[in-house]
Amino acid sequence: MSKGKFVEKITAMEDDFAQWYTDVVSEAELVDYGPVRGTMIMRPYGFSIWESVRDELDRQIKETGHVNVSFPLFIPESLLQKEKDHVDGFAPEVAWVTHGGDTELGERICVRPTSEVLFCEYYSKHINSYRDLPKLYNQWSNVVRWEKTTRPFLRSLEFFWQEGHTAHATSEEAKEETSRMLDVYADVLENYLAIPVLKGTKTESEKFAGADYTLTVETLMHDGQALQSGTSHMFGDGFAKAFDIKYLDKEGKEQYVFQTSWGMTTRVIGALIMVHGDNRGLVIPPKVAPTQALIVPIAQHKEGVLDKAYDLRDKLNNLVRVDIDASDHMPGWKFNQSEMKGYPVRIELGPKDIEKEQVVLVRRDTGEKEFVPLEDLESRLPALLEDIQKNLFDKAFAHRAEKTSVATNMDEFKTALKENPGFIKAMWCGKESCEEQIQEETGATSRLIPFENEQEHLSDTCVCCEAEATDMVYWARAY
Amino acid sequence: MSKGKFVEKITAMEDDFAQWYTDVVSEAELVDYGPVRGTMIMRPYGFSIWESVRDELDRQIKETGHVNVSFPLFIPESLLQKEKDHVDGFAPEVAWVTHGGDTELGERICVRPTSEVLFCEYYSKHINSYRDLPKLYNQWSNVVRWEKTTRPFLRSLEFFWQEGHTAHATSEEAKEETSRMLDVYADVLENYLAIPVLKGTKTESEKFAGADYTLTVETLMHDGQALQSGTSHMFGDGFAKAFDIKYLDKEGKEQYVFQTSWGMTTRVIGALIMVHGDNRGLVIPPKVAPTQALIVPIAQHKEGVLDKAYDLRDKLNNLVRVDIDASDHMPGWKFNQSEMKGYPVRIELGPKDIEKEQVVLVRRDTGEKEFVPLEDLESRLPALLEDIQKNLFDKAFAHRAEKTSVATNMDEFKTALKENPGFIKAMWCGKESCEEQIQEETGATSRLIPFENEQEHLSDTCVCCEAEATDMVYWARAY
Repeated sequence: MSKGKFVEKITAMEDDFAQWYTDVVSEAELVDYGPVRGTMIMRPYGFSIWESVRDELDRQIKETGHVNVSFPLFIPESLLQKEKDHVDGFAPEVAWVTHGGDTELGERICVRPTSEVLFCEYYSKHINSYRDLPKLYNQWSNVVRWEKTTRPFLRSLEFFWQEGHTAHATSEEAKEETSRMLDVYADVLENYLAIPVLKGTKTESEKFAGADYTLTVETLMHDGQALQSGTSHMFGDGFAKAFDIKYLDKEGKEQYVFQTSWGMTTRVIGALIMVHGDNRGLVIPPKVAPTQALIVPIAQHKEGVLDKAYDLRDKLNNLVRVDIDASDHMPGWKFNQSEMKGYPVRIELGPKDIEKEQVVLVRRDTGEKEFVPLEDLESRLPALLEDIQKNLFDKAFAHRAEKTSVATNMDEFKTALKENPGFIKAMWCGKESCEEQIQEETGATSRLIPFENEQEHLSDTCVCCEAEATDMVYWARAY
Repeated sequence: MSKGKFVEKITAMEDDFAQWYTDVVSEAELVDYGPVRGTMIMRPYGFSIWESVRDELDRQIKETGHVNVSFPLFIPESLLQKEKDHVDGFAPEVAWVTHGGDTELGERICVRPTSEVLFCEYYSKHINSYRDLPKLYNQWSNVVRWEKTTRPFLRSLEFFWQEGHTAHATSEEAKEETSRMLDVYADVLENYLAIPVLKGTKTESEKFAGADYTLTVETLMHDGQALQSGTSHMFGDGFAKAFDIKYLDKEGKEQYVFQTSWGMTTRVIGALIMVHGDNRGLVIPPKVAPTQALIVPIAQHKEGVLDKAYDLRDKLNNLVRVDIDASDHMPGWKFNQSEMKGYPVRIELGPKDIEKEQVVLVRRDTGEKEFVPLEDLESRLPALLEDIQKNLFDKAFAHRAEKTSVATNMDEFKTALKENPGFIKAMWCGKESCEEQIQEETGATSRLIPFENEQEHLSDTCVCCEAEATDMVYWARAY
């Protein structure tokens, strides 16, 4: 089976990036559509990738002192309404339960779009003394947001995430927590998913409903669009006042707590696809990959080939996550399939290789082949996987650098976005009206204000109006 | 603080078993009530126990060749109605979503009470050839059943479980799968949770809505009531016909698939509490326990005590799951608290112990104390944990034996159930009317028909009517 024939199975990303994405999630067997519009079935391969990301993030969440809990799916309407900004932000996209069995409910019930109000209600009951602080809770859950336009992983009616909800004695501690969890997200994205991030603060108009401020990690997809990949919110004592969450400090004085929340979702699988994928399908970084190396026996009907292939698998089993494709498909089909699924390394083993006591290693990221003596494989394979992990990050980093432009006026902004779609760095005056005008004229939104040490002075005035600029901002069209 | 004072915190189980249960789940900090009636918040300790059970069950599910997937929370009403028995069984307890944001939906959406129809819809699309079989899927999910009476873990509006859904080429294979997963449940219950099980088949009236037959594992609580602790359903080709799930066999002939489903839920934590718990609180079997040994420093203000205690923790850390209570509470409070939470072993370490180079081990199951030289601790502690695990199973096994009676007529049945509440073994004619009459007169239901090799011939006629008996059945009042 020729490679040419295979490539036709998915649209080329240069021709139609959105269709390429849809083709990949389907052909790589990641997801299928659920019967309710906008819902998603995670198939075994898609779910195993989510399990891999989830396990690493869960490890880091526990390592930073948090404990897992589980709060209910359902929120009474009256409880959702307790914090005004919050309900205004979420009510328009809530799914409402109105009947239980044959009975109409006295009060409508909301299927959680997020769980702040549930944690607040709980904390108001269980926090009494400074001894009860901090509370460092996290939960893995499904949430529902009634979105109009949906796409697998990127925006689905129901999605999976972890949501951390913490309460602290002081504002300072809550701010530290907000930053700490942003760093965890950045670490998982960069060192596990091999996706470089920009870190910073959301503008007022883009922050979470009810937060003092929102920190974000933003990543850049292959088509030059940005993806918000994890957010961490500092609530101050706003929710504490709405929900009356108070504690007695060491001096016996009543104080409000300070809170945070932070979440990362199944969206990051969308990022994984759109940052590393190519026209042959997925490319999964070795640290994430459920299967790091796939053994493909060549001429497997010949005596001894399959035995050798299984021996090899058993030998590598403790070293890397290895699998074998011993199906009755042709090797060419197996090559294509392993590329579509993005396994980092393919190991080919045929009668000639057995004779020469070698294997052929084919890396997914570059397509390069190498012949490796069997006796060197156990040292070569892990080194190769490390190299692939690093190469994927470096490539994505270089891509982002190439796709980042500077603009000092709206003409430059539009030209840059047209000729080299990606991030635009530009000065901003702090007014929401300029954000709105930029979005109207270009489709780009403010992605983040970099932290102080990453600020650059590009010009004296706002890229949009004549007013004095206060901050440099990263702008982009975004998913 | 005296133990006497502490015991008053929970009701004695002999006085009011239901209240004892409620007290324990609250005082051991397992759960709290959610704001919607019948929903449950799993607090950190409760959730860590569930994580422990879930991880072991997940390991065994994967080991038996299954893969995890994730299907949506929402089911359109029309899809739920495709299999008649199934919708009749579940519709009365469904939570209905009727609005998304401000918009009334064209079709009502059901919050999944179970996911058979979703898997069937998927299988009808993805199964075409014998090469696609078997499909061995499992998912961990939350489901909702609008129950009238609820209790934490035992019966909650929303609960957690795994639901396996498989499709096979032949009826024989599906039957084997049904039995295999029952054995997995029995293994997790007996060898991990230390809870002895009875295995068998449900009667027609107790089987799952839409199944050919249902296998069950039943356990006995301390108060003599039974708890259905895991079920495995053989569907035959009933769902396949309703959903048109067909494949081409090796001869190119169209065939319907044969399906199974099987589930185990957060209920088993209820079993854990009610099988092993006592009037001091929880007793967690060592294999399940998130904390297997708690170090309690005595006179921890004295120089060197806390240092030694932390040294000990670091030394034991790789051997067992160990924690330390270095809070500023009194040792008596810590003893009581560690008993309430059911940690298998408490390690006491004070100045005198340090001088003598020893520790005091207190086992939770029997309360026995022993002095162990520090140099022997690393061999003694794991052996002690093994012994506790075994003792808990043996105690529960003896309790069940003691609480199992034989009845050959209704008088004996009623007397046994009154004087020694528990399982009643009795012959049955196979008629549903007798099951109904027994339930009306005694409150007991048929729990299971033991497999053939466990059948006993207790009498010739049904315990309820005069008709010829066909099977021995285990009966009990049940949760």
